Amino acid sequence: MKIGKNSISFNDVYVYNTSSQVGPKEGEGPLGKYFDTIYKDEYIGQQSWEKSEMMLLDNAIKNVINKSFEPKIDCLISGDLVNQMVVSNYVARNYDFPFIGVYGACSTSVLGIIMGSMMIDDKNANMVITSCSSHNLDAERQFRYPTEYGGAKPNTATTTVTGASATILSNIKTDIRIEGATIGRVIDANVNNPNDMGSAMAPAAYETIKQHFIDFNRTPNDYDLIITGDLSLVGKPILIDLLKQDGYDIEKVHYDAGLMIYDLENQEVHSGGSGCACMGVVLNSYVMDLLKKGKVKRVLAVATGALLNPLIMNQNETIPSISHAISIIGGVK
Amino acid sequence: MKIGKNSISFNDVYVYNTSSQVGPKEGEGPLGKYFDTIYKDEYIGQQSWEKSEMMLLDNAIKNVINKSFEPKIDCLISGDLVNQMVVSNYVARNYDFPFIGVYGACSTSVLGIIMGSMMIDDKNANMVITSCSSHNLDAERQFRYPTEYGGAKPNTATTTVTGASATILSNIKTDIRIEGATIGRVIDANVNNPNDMGSAMAPAAYETIKQHFIDFNRTPNDYDLIITGDLSLVGKPILIDLLKQDGYDIEKVHYDAGLMIYDLENQEVHSGGSGCACMGVVLNSYVMDLLKKGKVKRVLAVATGALLNPLIMNQNETIPSISHAISIIGGVK
Repeated sequence: MKIGKNSISFNDVYVYNTSSQVGPKEGEGPLGKYFDTIYKDEYIGQQSWEKSEMMLLDNAIKNVINKSFEPKIDCLISGDLVNQMVVSNYVARNYDFPFIGVYGACSTSVLGIIMGSMMIDDKNANMVITSCSSHNLDAERQFRYPTEYGGAKPNTATTTVTGASATILSNIKTDIRIEGATIGRVIDANVNNPNDMGSAMAPAAYETIKQHFIDFNRTPNDYDLIITGDLSLVGKPILIDLLKQDGYDIEKVHYDAGLMIYDLENQEVHSGGSGCACMGVVLNSYVMDLLKKGKVKRVLAVATGALLNPLIMNQNETIPSISHAISIIGGVK
Repeated sequence: MKIGKNSISFNDVYVYNTSSQVGPKEGEGPLGKYFDTIYKDEYIGQQSWEKSEMMLLDNAIKNVINKSFEPKIDCLISGDLVNQMVVSNYVARNYDFPFIGVYGACSTSVLGIIMGSMMIDDKNANMVITSCSSHNLDAERQFRYPTEYGGAKPNTATTTVTGASATILSNIKTDIRIEGATIGRVIDANVNNPNDMGSAMAPAAYETIKQHFIDFNRTPNDYDLIITGDLSLVGKPILIDLLKQDGYDIEKVHYDAGLMIYDLENQEVHSGGSGCACMGVVLNSYVMDLLKKGKVKRVLAVATGALLNPLIMNQNETIPSISHAISIIGGVK
């Protein structure tokens, strides 16, 4: 790869605009005021959960376009958790843009930004929308277990975020620059409990963060904020411990989007939030706001994905995971 | 985009090696002698169809690596039809390569080559493996209908190819160069019969081929071969007619991988082959052989994907489709 084993650097990739759309539970959480739109129920005016998620994603894309002055979009990149990614695919038919589907489970938010950044930095495109979505109720039935079973959840389980995010990346200079990326490897930590994805994903986040530090010759001190996607209460301490064993102490700058989006004491979300939209909406609202206002200078955004499906879990398999990272600089202008 | 509305050109992307692995039915077809490995049954020594497909994909990747002298792989790109792409994701854990998951249904073969070509041409990577797979029996149960239903099929239905392909792309000069790509838009032609994907996908192939000609200022005469992925007996005449209406006559140079891989008169495959591996294995065996031997000089490979899933079809939806194209030049050295 261009930088070390897993990494790429970018010279001219900027965040032009962002959008975040969330459901009611996310809107009631601590970051509520940062989201562009909070819907009053999970249906979003639709007849099925899949179509509700499509509406969220479509609104995120529409919103990020509407925020921008006559944007000339070259390409749309999107992904989601639903079987055969029908949410992204069906929404993409509404737009006359070349479309690229990417899948990294809950790491899709950052994977899309990496692919879009490559296209822009290499002058294949001037302006790209990268988006992702998840919906608590369709993810429950297509990604986890049939919702209809109504099974109780253990405390290690996470709550899929209902939401969608969209980012316009471009070569037009703004306050926020994507300066580099580390593409993850698939790591299987031999965890086989789909109700404990934090334990499955933390080793993937560890590998990617460590590789990022090695590739860019950096340490945790180079970052004001290292934010993971959805490691939850279970995965966060595992990640911190694994990195400590290698001499990297990220504790002071580490936050997990899954622990930021909900009030874990007062909302019933078990060990935290998850889903493509978890990192998607937190990154594209609160984190971008911090960067824009100069409250943080350099952020490492590390999305994590558990690469299972329900059928393969029934075949006595473990849960491989992946984690993709981007380094973002604020106050560039 | 770099070239016109949907296209990109590449300067230094070459096909370093390819591999094609197929099941018994594909091995018995007219292209049998071109495939690297033909398995004697669909189990490939595994206990489940999903694991059989994983074995096919893993063997394709291993085979393309083994064919090459100490290849230094920078990145693996892969995709498949199974829910949450578990085939690609689980196989990727066997390799210490950065991994990118892409999804475009049966257009995934070419989508992966486009993403890999971008990475190489822009010097983000020197050597990339791009792969895809499909398996008749797990696609039937996760992509079409539960196999267990054992429903009879109409003649418009296609047969999912059991196979996997892998391509090593690199900046090292070889006989075969990827010179350009056209990224498709999602087209919904208002077809809602999942047993007639040819009709759903032909309009997407039409849009992409037309856009390719416009973007590169070319005509069908510039190509010795235009090969689509899996339009079948139903979709092929639709594509040819649609292009004729715009003054493009591709009839003399058009072939469909789904009609090449099986002997439609003597094998029971309904209207032809389909699945990610259909274009994957035909492109990475027979077509590359034609290019290497100089029997064709310039090929337009146009993979097509139907972007449905079974659950969304039950919600009274139509079938959006996409098609991605690459232009390949042979006899470069």
